[in-house]
Amino acid sequence: MPITPYVALDLQQLEKNVRGMTGKLTQQDIEHWPHIKTHKSVELAKFEIACGAKGITCATLQEATVMAEGGIDHILLAYPMIGEQKCKQFIELAKKIRLKTIIDSLQGAEQLSVAAKQENQIIEVYIAVDYGAHREGIQLDDLEPFALAIQKLPNLKIIGVFTYAGTIYQYRTEPEIRKAAKAEAELLLSCQKRLEKLGIEAPRTSGGSTLSSFYADELKGITESRAGNFIFGDMNAIYGGIYTPEDCALTIRTTVVSIPIEGYATVDAGTKTLTSDQSAEPGFGYIVEDPNIKLVKLNEEHGYLRYDPKKIKLNIGDVLNIIPNHSCVIPNLTNKIYALNNNEIDHIIIPDARY
Amino acid sequence: MPITPYVALDLQQLEKNVRGMTGKLTQQDIEHWPHIKTHKSVELAKFEIACGAKGITCATLQEATVMAEGGIDHILLAYPMIGEQKCKQFIELAKKIRLKTIIDSLQGAEQLSVAAKQENQIIEVYIAVDYGAHREGIQLDDLEPFALAIQKLPNLKIIGVFTYAGTIYQYRTEPEIRKAAKAEAELLLSCQKRLEKLGIEAPRTSGGSTLSSFYADELKGITESRAGNFIFGDMNAIYGGIYTPEDCALTIRTTVVSIPIEGYATVDAGTKTLTSDQSAEPGFGYIVEDPNIKLVKLNEEHGYLRYDPKKIKLNIGDVLNIIPNHSCVIPNLTNKIYALNNNEIDHIIIPDARY
Repeated sequence: MPITPYVALDLQQLEKNVRGMTGKLTQQDIEHWPHIKTHKSVELAKFEIACGAKGITCATLQEATVMAEGGIDHILLAYPMIGEQKCKQFIELAKKIRLKTIIDSLQGAEQLSVAAKQENQIIEVYIAVDYGAHREGIQLDDLEPFALAIQKLPNLKIIGVFTYAGTIYQYRTEPEIRKAAKAEAELLLSCQKRLEKLGIEAPRTSGGSTLSSFYADELKGITESRAGNFIFGDMNAIYGGIYTPEDCALTIRTTVVSIPIEGYATVDAGTKTLTSDQSAEPGFGYIVEDPNIKLVKLNEEHGYLRYDPKKIKLNIGDVLNIIPNHSCVIPNLTNKIYALNNNEIDHIIIPDARY
Repeated sequence: MPITPYVALDLQQLEKNVRGMTGKLTQQDIEHWPHIKTHKSVELAKFEIACGAKGITCATLQEATVMAEGGIDHILLAYPMIGEQKCKQFIELAKKIRLKTIIDSLQGAEQLSVAAKQENQIIEVYIAVDYGAHREGIQLDDLEPFALAIQKLPNLKIIGVFTYAGTIYQYRTEPEIRKAAKAEAELLLSCQKRLEKLGIEAPRTSGGSTLSSFYADELKGITESRAGNFIFGDMNAIYGGIYTPEDCALTIRTTVVSIPIEGYATVDAGTKTLTSDQSAEPGFGYIVEDPNIKLVKLNEEHGYLRYDPKKIKLNIGDVLNIIPNHSCVIPNLTNKIYALNNNEIDHIIIPDARY
């Protein structure tokens, strides 16, 4: 085994998670377009496609470029391309594979249109609508004028409506999440109808987080989901009530390196391994061996454990497994993910698209 | 210029920061052992040595290995080596360069001693004492019995006392920080005296954060400081009152990619560029162009800006500079730091020891 800290990935659980999510979506006639920002690995993206995904979703042009170089030929870049330089690079990539993206500003759309025209490419775009987080997307009232303005731009082809309903992560019970998932699908479908009334055919409706896609029956009617996190699971999925610790495929292996006082121990995983991302409950991760040991604080290479020394005995050198708060940030921090087969290292997975 | 987001480093300011800190320490006869976890770059470590540092400090065995391969031959690995495998690798590296480390447990010290004996190496160690954060270090009351026990272990040579007084970062005024710096030095010197009384000569006393080292006159008497963050500066240094925004050499260049509503804008730097590290005030960084624009929230590739649209006008495509909350986590997230000379790219600096 490598020296700690390192990222361990259970291959059996990984496959279960991927097949589980693909199955749920396929059953509802929803295409699976997994977001690969979670793992950034060509190997894992190809595995998701082999398990039934129709294409993949990327968060950055660099991710899409690396995935295309790795042989993946159908990508949704779920990020607005802004600036001449980025638009040009996007078009270069779009010459090589089927590449779609989102638009939510006239400025961005114009830049993309100019770059597309220059290279004689037709670019398929989704209109992004703001679900309420005000992170991106046009306001609902602006849908018709925006769509009509976009329609006039050369070399862009509106193919659908897109939203990101990240607000769903505030909910922790099935009824709340189901309600939010349903509302997400309804928003997309109502926007699609409004575009149809304008004579704009927008056959595709793109939504879906890991939480909403877990209740895929509520998303029925949309064409595709971009769930990403489900592949590994983490405390966000556990607090959302859709995963148990046993469902989580990715853990961080770490060693107890110091016990300055009984009840206070330090492990060699800190923010440079786990990040300082928080979740619904205090703490920076879940100790698989004993959840009564709390990971209360992190420095860069130090994780601070607190436990009741009357009930729990820790020793210098003990190796512990941590389920992270947010698994989508973990592969971005390492060159190597150790893929385990029955707890033995099977091979190393590279997060190829890490910056 | 590269597409955003990217990390920009002002070479003139960098040199000013390095010479400033080295000068302050040298004036007090304190050796400078800068912590390279901040930049992880061989080039910058060598620059710090060229400016007067006596050696460097590393946080991980991997950092130390990369720095040694890069030609740096005197390293303090400020982390306890735990486990047979890590101790063996440490000893292998210690055969090649002058490598020192810290101990704070008998178990760890025994493992290191065994590995050192096997390879016939003498390893210089500092005894780490707990300054009160309970992250690492032996308790003060245990100093004498611990030192005597270590003295009996073959192939280990106690050379000094070590502490990390991270609690200083809770203070924000010069008198408070000066007081904390003085207390840090006093602790180290009193432990040194206690060891002398046992007949254990421990000539070296290792302490110093960026905050305490800025007031190096308060540290007078200790032999060395491990300040790291000073090289770049960040919001922690600004809130600590020792740097202004103009003193910060490292920024993140980012583009406004969406303005869903006036007053709500999104930039293309998120947790995968800035991390979710927080500082003394709310927010995730400081917008150099206008500090009234607040960076209130981050997703992985999205930074949420909030501003008063009556007073501030932002446009899609605007490029902004962010001073991060904590600069020590930034180079760990990128392959390339763009070194600027009068705002033109001079060359690219590689964070070589990034995992």
